[in-house]
Amino acid sequence: MLDVCLPGTGGMMPLPERWLSCCWIEYQGKALLVDCGEGTQIALKKAGCKLSRLDILLVTHFHADHIAGLPGLLLTLGNHDKKTPLLIVGPQHLEAVVSSLMIIAPALPYPVELIELKNGTEGLLEDDELSVSYLPLEHGIPCFGYRVSLRRKPVFNPEKAGQLGVPKNLFKTLHAGTPVRLDDGRQIEPRMVLDGERRPLSVTYITDSVPTAPMADFARDSDLLVCEGMYGETEMRDKMEEKGHMVFADSARLASMAGAGRLWLTHFSPAMKDPETYIGNARAVFRNTEIGYDGIKTTL
Amino acid sequence: MLDVCLPGTGGMMPLPERWLSCCWIEYQGKALLVDCGEGTQIALKKAGCKLSRLDILLVTHFHADHIAGLPGLLLTLGNHDKKTPLLIVGPQHLEAVVSSLMIIAPALPYPVELIELKNGTEGLLEDDELSVSYLPLEHGIPCFGYRVSLRRKPVFNPEKAGQLGVPKNLFKTLHAGTPVRLDDGRQIEPRMVLDGERRPLSVTYITDSVPTAPMADFARDSDLLVCEGMYGETEMRDKMEEKGHMVFADSARLASMAGAGRLWLTHFSPAMKDPETYIGNARAVFRNTEIGYDGIKTTL
Repeated sequence: MLDVCLPGTGGMMPLPERWLSCCWIEYQGKALLVDCGEGTQIALKKAGCKLSRLDILLVTHFHADHIAGLPGLLLTLGNHDKKTPLLIVGPQHLEAVVSSLMIIAPALPYPVELIELKNGTEGLLEDDELSVSYLPLEHGIPCFGYRVSLRRKPVFNPEKAGQLGVPKNLFKTLHAGTPVRLDDGRQIEPRMVLDGERRPLSVTYITDSVPTAPMADFARDSDLLVCEGMYGETEMRDKMEEKGHMVFADSARLASMAGAGRLWLTHFSPAMKDPETYIGNARAVFRNTEIGYDGIKTTL
Repeated sequence: MLDVCLPGTGGMMPLPERWLSCCWIEYQGKALLVDCGEGTQIALKKAGCKLSRLDILLVTHFHADHIAGLPGLLLTLGNHDKKTPLLIVGPQHLEAVVSSLMIIAPALPYPVELIELKNGTEGLLEDDELSVSYLPLEHGIPCFGYRVSLRRKPVFNPEKAGQLGVPKNLFKTLHAGTPVRLDDGRQIEPRMVLDGERRPLSVTYITDSVPTAPMADFARDSDLLVCEGMYGETEMRDKMEEKGHMVFADSARLASMAGAGRLWLTHFSPAMKDPETYIGNARAVFRNTEIGYDGIKTTL
């Protein structure tokens, strides 16, 4: 299971009624955060995200609305007794930016590890459960989209197991991938009772970019695409193209081309008071669109 | 007139229900801010403070809860069309700290000017209206208290003016300090119709320090003393002394020794959910104490 939450959904500057965009993804007791603007630590608390679980911070780019909350978050993690390393991933010059901002957070009770991304698209993190990949975006300064995937165990087929005479108390072991030996001496292999691989669960997060050709492949078949919609009005497209952003219709088109399960819009302009007004502009292109709001949550 | 507001009253870390401590002082269309932690720009908006009026930022010290909001504030001032200089005043190494934090706010449409304080107590800013002075505090790292004073015109005595035969339409000119000549040729000097100097209006802001001997003189006769009260319980005094902070009773004692008009407590520990519980510990020492809360305002 992947628990996904958008503690904030605003762009450019934090507002009394809207925190800055970020995305919290929780999996098996650990958590990953995308972006950390001013106030994100407060937004996380308000949304009920458990800071003590945070292991990985993915930074899309170094505009202040995506990174200014870093020193405060680092200190607050320390105050929450974090001892395990925090991995921070971000564009070129990550080390310079993080060390500059840490001038006001010089001593932490846990190690900070850094990965600076190059302009490729290889997988970034790969372990038994989680994989993270990234895509360079177009926003005037280096900026990356991220895709977070959680591998799932193959489906267990209790019928097959029953036919083989496997007692129920061994089902869990087989499902976890470990062979078992029955009382009559027969060895049962997991593949004999499993129904093949399942597609991983995926969330793709894309913000602060004009639409680009590789986006659709990058987000292909994501269960959830979280994508910026700086403005709802399609007429704002040219102006947003200039500023390196997308409108609702752009994001919906991407969700449609990628075959995403759902689309959450985020990173709204401070000038757009009520994004719901424009949901029609997205749903006309991609039906399964929701307007993100601070604290929106789902479990995949 | 001095308009004073505490947009935030928290210490250590920003909370969903309490912004970090800062103080907004407005005088004759201009404004001065003391401290700028994470989220202060949001707190200012919430409290109705007009960012476009901000000319001076006084920083007490470089712990993140007092400075981490700087890059966001600088950028937002730019987005509010600020063109006039912003003066930032703070402890030694101000330039290093500001330039480090500005790695994510590299281009501003207005100049930033800096004054690094030394360990004296001289007046800092002196103009016709406003004067700002500072006092080194004791907090483990360099930290300063500030006193902001607004000069007031002497009291105009309309009786004296009437006896001298000054017509009413010249009262304002004389009150502003300009001599006038009457129709009969007599010259009237301002001192002939004014009742002498009035004490300036003063706000003193002291936070993040153990009590020190010079504080009372520094805050002498302040109309308003804003002072930290990290905890309400007097039993916390020894622990706070270690950590470089004050409890309610310390602040009240200072207000009393200084002969302040009023005391506002601020900079509450995140662990102290309801500071009102402990107001008795302050009022037993200094009756005119109020517990600060986010958005508290007054006009002096």
